[in-house]
This record gives sequence, structure tokens and C-alpha cells, in this order.
Amino acid sequence: MTRVWVDGEPGDQIAVADRGLQYGDGLFETIACRAGRIRFLELHLTRLQRGAEVLALPLPPLSLLRAELTNAAAAGAAVSLLKLIVTRGVAGRGYAPPAAPTANRILWHWTDEPAPPERCARLGVAAMRLAASPRLAGIKHLNRLEQVLGRAELASAGWDEALMLTADGAVACATAANIFAVVGGLLRTPRIDTAGIRGVMRAVVLREAPKLGLSVEEGRLTLPELAAASELFLTNARVGVLPVEHLQGVFIGAGPIAARIRTHVASLDD
Amino acid sequence: MTRVWVDGEPGDQIAVADRGLQYGDGLFETIACRAGRIRFLELHLTRLQRGAEVLALPLPPLSLLRAELTNAAAAGAAVSLLKLIVTRGVAGRGYAPPAAPTANRILWHWTDEPAPPERCARLGVAAMRLAASPRLAGIKHLNRLEQVLGRAELASAGWDEALMLTADGAVACATAANIFAVVGGLLRTPRIDTAGIRGVMRAVVLREAPKLGLSVEEGRLTLPELAAASELFLTNARVGVLPVEHLQGVFIGAGPIAARIRTHVASLDD
Repeated sequence: MTRVWVDGEPGDQIAVADRGLQYGDGLFETIACRAGRIRFLELHLTRLQRGAEVLALPLPPLSLLRAELTNAAAAGAAVSLLKLIVTRGVAGRGYAPPAAPTANRILWHWTDEPAPPERCARLGVAAMRLAASPRLAGIKHLNRLEQVLGRAELASAGWDEALMLTADGAVACATAANIFAVVGGLLRTPRIDTAGIRGVMRAVVLREAPKLGLSVEEGRLTLPELAAASELFLTNARVGVLPVEHLQGVFIGAGPIAARIRTHVASLDD
Repeated sequence: MTRVWVDGEPGDQIAVADRGLQYGDGLFETIACRAGRIRFLELHLTRLQRGAEVLALPLPPLSLLRAELTNAAAAGAAVSLLKLIVTRGVAGRGYAPPAAPTANRILWHWTDEPAPPERCARLGVAAMRLAASPRLAGIKHLNRLEQVLGRAELASAGWDEALMLTADGAVACATAANIFAVVGGLLRTPRIDTAGIRGVMRAVVLREAPKLGLSVEEGRLTLPELAAASELFLTNARVGVLPVEHLQGVFIGAGPIAARIRTHVASLDD
């Protein structure tokens, strides 16, 4: 079942004058829940706040968002999913943000999600490149045409996911996940300083890996470096940690380090 | 008065599941009308079609859009304005476009617009840079956060408009207009191959200038080149041709070439 609220009330419509539609002027979060409990809620709210700072978008009170998310999640089955959109609200014509905008919020709850997949069998590389935008990098804003066009390549190519590169050939992320490479016992992941989203599950892996005795490094990664890795895995809030089996048709296989991290992360709530 | 139609019916709401809100997955046009007649309708529809090709977004029939726009415009005063948004419509979760989407369209008509300004007194330079995205450059899609953040700089800086540069320092456009420089009798304007929108009024000026004996050149322009120009002017569908008086506080002044083009373009309908 899908339940939807607009500004706290059941509803599924929004004003066409909303700046979320007009310009993609807003932010979103996709949040996993387990048995009615939200996973990593504070990490999601922290990223939302960071995005709101970048966009100078006054959020609804965090206490309100926290309460609405928690209440919605409570009705969830073993696995459920929340999506929250916060926009800069309704305004008159033109790009200029109003002086005192009132944010609008839309909350979805898919109460009975299928369990996430066990692995990504086929990871490809999208022809669509990500533009370098240091100011907007990392935050989960509503301007997502690049991901839409990247994702559109999956179906015809027969991939489960696709990596997206920046113009200079660096790996940024997958269309809807972050990527980690295991290189000589070290976990490496793109820095996300010019393109891509700093995923909540990425943050969890960066935080937890040292507890498992694994060193982590954020930096520049290229496709040849990924191809030479002993293991690759994807992360996002919904799927957790997802081992990659093939990269561009070449077998890599799920390895022990991804499996350890996957099991560990699955055991956490926050 | 503002009139709004959603998919041809009076309305001011749209489904929150619309991909225009979710991802900015859509296109728009802002169209000037004079005494109930649309100016440069076919140029607007051509750009919309070009955008739809880039996004692989199946548009409603052009005959339908043409009829709705023309009918709406007919009620306009001396100066009125249309805005059309076309989205990829409602879909389930995830970035992937549906195999057979049904576009949604939203049409606004501001029946009684104020006359456009006579000139741009103060043109500044936004700190916000435009990301280079060759595939999305030129089209008028709904991912407009860069323009929102650029425009947000105007109020505090006391500018009327602001130029936006790409990361490599090239001038792309203003937040809501294209820019032309008069350099030794030649009209120069940025090529719009990595960032910015190919404006309809820009296309009109490029088409009409040779008829006035003026050569035009699309290429790379930098701020020092603009500062050395004898005249600068902005263009967009609403304001037409707008001479720039000051660039970054330095007087340039409205000149005879911009005035000639302005008068000529104002005399045209198509």
C-alpha cells in the first residue's frame, strides 16, 4: 500500500505554482524502515539540513519532520520505505526565491516493500555524464535529469545499475547508489566533491568500516581502477550493501569483504 | 489576471507523483503575446520539440499545444504572457522513465502584463557557476536550481540581472536572458554548447541581424571581452532586446546598434 501526505494531511496533489515543479527547487530523502522503525533517521535529517543550507531553503521544523516520519513508519511491514520531498513552496513568477518562503512537504510511505536484491549482477557504465557542480554536489536536490537519462540506459543495455562518470572520466556514483571498491584490503569510494549524492548508506559504511578493521579512503576513482579491484559494491539506503558481480560484462564476483560489511550494516539501526 | 489549465482543463493542482516534481523531468516555454497574438510561436514549439528529443519525452500533439496556446493568448491585453510546462507525467518510483509515458501539460496565462523594462541598468556577475552539460545545454528543461541560486544573488547585490559563467570562466548567459556584445560592429554571443538556454529571442536576433547589415558570431566570450565591447544587450522572449547600462558597476551605456535591433525585433511577430 502507498500512503501519501501533503503538509501533514492525506493528499496526492500539489499546487502547480510550487517551485519544486517549476524549477526542481527542493530536496528529497528516501528512507528505509524495518518492522515499523526508521533506519538512520538522524543521518537522513542531517543530509537534508545540509541541502537546505546550500539552497538557503528554510525547512519545516526538524521536530515536525521527525514526528511525521516516525509516525508514518510505524505502520510499516517487515520492510517499508519512506520518501520525503521538501520544496521551497509556492511563489510568484521567476527564478528569484521569495524573501520568506514557506516550504511544502510531501511524504510517501510504501508500507510493504519487497526485500532488497542480494546483489547487482550486471553493472554498466552510462554514456550520460554528470556535470561538475561543486556547490550542488553531495546534496539530494530535485534536479535529477542526469540520473533520469542515465537510468534510461539500463533497460536497453540489460544492466541492473550503471556507473555515472564526470566529464573528466572520474567515477562519481551509480544512478541511484554510491560505489565502493576493495583495493588491496582498502575501501575506496569517490569523494563526491563535484557530482553525485553523498548517500546515507555511504556515510554508514565510511563510519563502520574502521570498526571492522578496514581502512577507507575517499578520492578520485577511474574505471580502470574499479576494473582492477578485488571487490565492488553499491550502497544506498534502500538496498544497504549490494555486491557487484560483473562490471561491463567482466566477472568480478561477490567477495568476503563486501559480505562482512553487508552483514554488519544490516545489523545496525542507527 | 492569471489563468491556469492542467491538461486542458482549468485547474491549479498536479499529482505529487508527477515526474516534473519528482525529478524536474520536463520542459517549459515562456511566451510573449501582444494584443492577443503569440509572438514567435513556431520558434517556441521548435525548441520544445528539440528538448523533447533530448529527453526522449513524448510530447502531446503539437497541434493540440498550438491550439491551446493560441486560444489562451486570444484573451490577452496589450501585453500578456504564457508559460507552458510539459512533464513526463505520473509514474511509479525510481528514476527510470516509464516505457510509454503520458506527458502532462500545465498552461498559465498572465492576461495583463506590465510592459517590459527599457533597459538593464545594472548587470552583475553571479558567483554561482553553470555546470557543463553538453547533452542538456540549450534546452529549457525543468532542472533550474543553478538559475535559482544565481538569481538569488541579485537582491543583495542590487543588480537587475546577473551573468552566469561556466567553470572555465566563459560567459554562458544571464540568469533569465541571453547576452550579446557589440564588438567592432560585429554581434557576438556565447555558443550555448555546454550550458545555458538557447533563447527564442536570441534565435530571432541571430536570424534578423544580417538583414540589418550586422554580422553575428556565436563563440566563446569572456568577461574582459564583454567589458571591452562597445555595447551589450540582453534578450529573452518577454523583454525582447534590453540594452545594458552598467557591467559590474562600469558604465557602458545603451548604444545605437542595440537600439536598432530592439526597434526592428519589436516590429516583428514571427
